[in-house]
Amino acid sequence: MKAKIIIIGNELLYGRIADTNGPWLAKWLDARGIEVCEIQVLPDEREVLLRAFEDGLKSCDLILTSGGIGPTKDDMTKSLLAEFTGKKLRPCEETAKIVIENYKYYDREWTPDLNSYHHIPEDFIATPNPKGLAPGLVFINNNKLIAAAPGVPRELKAMVEEEFAPYIDKLFKEKYSPKSRIVIRTARVPEEKIFKELCPTLWDELSQFGLVSSLPQVIGVDIVVTLSGSDPSDELVKIKKLIEKSALNEHVWQWDNTPLPELVINEARNKKLTFAFAESCTGGLTASRITDIPGCSDVFIGSLVTYSNDAKTNILGVKQQTLKKFGAVSEEVVEEMACGLLDKIGADLVLAFSGIAGPTGGSESKPVGTLALASGKKGEIEKSIFKFAGDRERLKLRFSEIGLFYLLKLIRNY
Amino acid sequence: MKAKIIIIGNELLYGRIADTNGPWLAKWLDARGIEVCEIQVLPDEREVLLRAFEDGLKSCDLILTSGGIGPTKDDMTKSLLAEFTGKKLRPCEETAKIVIENYKYYDREWTPDLNSYHHIPEDFIATPNPKGLAPGLVFINNNKLIAAAPGVPRELKAMVEEEFAPYIDKLFKEKYSPKSRIVIRTARVPEEKIFKELCPTLWDELSQFGLVSSLPQVIGVDIVVTLSGSDPSDELVKIKKLIEKSALNEHVWQWDNTPLPELVINEARNKKLTFAFAESCTGGLTASRITDIPGCSDVFIGSLVTYSNDAKTNILGVKQQTLKKFGAVSEEVVEEMACGLLDKIGADLVLAFSGIAGPTGGSESKPVGTLALASGKKGEIEKSIFKFAGDRERLKLRFSEIGLFYLLKLIRNY
Repeated sequence: MKAKIIIIGNELLYGRIADTNGPWLAKWLDARGIEVCEIQVLPDEREVLLRAFEDGLKSCDLILTSGGIGPTKDDMTKSLLAEFTGKKLRPCEETAKIVIENYKYYDREWTPDLNSYHHIPEDFIATPNPKGLAPGLVFINNNKLIAAAPGVPRELKAMVEEEFAPYIDKLFKEKYSPKSRIVIRTARVPEEKIFKELCPTLWDELSQFGLVSSLPQVIGVDIVVTLSGSDPSDELVKIKKLIEKSALNEHVWQWDNTPLPELVINEARNKKLTFAFAESCTGGLTASRITDIPGCSDVFIGSLVTYSNDAKTNILGVKQQTLKKFGAVSEEVVEEMACGLLDKIGADLVLAFSGIAGPTGGSESKPVGTLALASGKKGEIEKSIFKFAGDRERLKLRFSEIGLFYLLKLIRNY
Repeated sequence: MKAKIIIIGNELLYGRIADTNGPWLAKWLDARGIEVCEIQVLPDEREVLLRAFEDGLKSCDLILTSGGIGPTKDDMTKSLLAEFTGKKLRPCEETAKIVIENYKYYDREWTPDLNSYHHIPEDFIATPNPKGLAPGLVFINNNKLIAAAPGVPRELKAMVEEEFAPYIDKLFKEKYSPKSRIVIRTARVPEEKIFKELCPTLWDELSQFGLVSSLPQVIGVDIVVTLSGSDPSDELVKIKKLIEKSALNEHVWQWDNTPLPELVINEARNKKLTFAFAESCTGGLTASRITDIPGCSDVFIGSLVTYSNDAKTNILGVKQQTLKKFGAVSEEVVEEMACGLLDKIGADLVLAFSGIAGPTGGSESKPVGTLALASGKKGEIEKSIFKFAGDRERLKLRFSEIGLFYLLKLIRNY
């Protein structure tokens, strides 16, 4: 049971827009146990797309496409699917009803002169669009399925989950075989050190359980084992024993795939702890990542993004002479930021960040990538200086990730 | 002159990681005038990759690959490129020197027993890795070029820009023909309204100048014309005249491709204005997007992310009775947030956001997607209520984007 994902749009091939539908679809299919053999990003070009459909049907049972079913003249997926399957594109009454409903949801009226949304290839099924106007398409033939969704990510997601899923499940359910994966998340040891120094035999030992991969992440390496056996819980126990005996054990911080912001929120909630940030170099990123998670309001109070030195003084009460004497990126300043924050905002735990995200502003003693971090609670603030590599956006992420990692440790030790 | 991008890694095909190298490479190649005919995301599988290399060389002059050249056992790009080109993979002294230098940069020592970084296919060129350890690969044959970079984005970017570019330019420079694109960015009119109601003949009129595409963005539609003529500045004048006469003109806010955060910073800097935010529902996202832009410290003071109601009261002085009477998502509360912010922080212009990003917290009168926004300067605060659709992350982005759009208008009218 294999699937191919085809992402369509000229704008994706000159880098104006980065595709996010491919990864989302891959994850969605993987959760069902459907193996994705390829994600192809292709331009709105007749020959190229016809060939991709043909190749896809040769090796796969399912083709999902994104894009090219909108109302403008560069949208050609529908007519190419008609051509590819040898079907006529023609107006369809059932489809018109779906379009009228799609429009009604947005308090708008649809008439056939507005666009050709009601035209579909014969023998195709039109599906409602739960978050937009253009209907989707499903075509089933010879136990293979082709489904075409809009390129707008929120429309694609809703259409796949609500409209395509029943067709896919009905046709393929018996062929599904969801894969179990074990994720060993480590912090602050490089890939090479793990597999060469700490545990030179680990890769081979883990390979007995299935396919191993090693994925360097922001604060450490994730080791993923895609299990080949039939008893994941039994295998997890065995792998945990293996790791517990190894020198890697003290670096493992999670046996699952929960992103750090979500994990911090969950563990803080379990311990009924609240937290807040004072951010300079991270510029609100840490708060934004936390507030991406629904329900964060149980534990997250707020973040004071004091980007300018004046703001550090006015808002957090950092002393001007501390700024002058030690510089904004210093243990002394982040300590005062953390204390000021604890005074202003009623949180159990706080983080304060000040660093140099670059590209300018570095010096010999404090190069771009330097971070001063304070973390702790009332009367107990710990300070650290880190040095990271990367461009501005990458550094902001690394700064914020190491901060959240320290917050996780604070929560676990509370 | 065509290029194919091949992104390699199992983890990309089950959605664990979303590829960002493909879009970056596409943009980089487009800037040189090299047309990308396909981005392929493929697993670490011998047959699949060999076939992709073969197909790529048939139709393209340049193949760029990402991933699979690291030290672990699932890294197979190097040996497959050797197999594909019929070359032997063997230790190379020149490459060993490069690897030693790569390691030296990180204060580490490399010896051949550590990994096989010094093994490359014969007749291949190894390149330094300016931001990492594994060397890159370049192979030139029959006026075609294959280059293999690491999958870590910062390593790939630096390697392509600093190491691959000279080889690519040397071989292909005469074949380059950079494309000119004109971007017409509009706000707050749907695609269909533009092309059906406001300007039904616009698409055809623009098509005289080249390939037209219409790209719905967060706050409006971008219309892009890839010019086919030879005099972009002359064509820009003609297209501008066309738009000026049309009903679309009042909705156009930019004739370029600058993201809104960057445009806001540039225009504020030109007028010597500073700004600050008070964020609730956007949770620091607006500040984070602003601080992604180097040099924002000229104009950006900070953002007070008051997520809890207590923080709104303690930090911004929002009255508890206002919160109780009107609710946190109300014109009254954002007005008090904006005024409190102006009192605390010395900024010329401010935005205050309070809204419901969901998935819970909505009500009949204030559904998920409701945003209260205050914008203005001392003594002159404007308030608005918006209703948007989307999931939590999407809504945060839409809230922040509409806020920045209002800030742009404030700056332009100052």
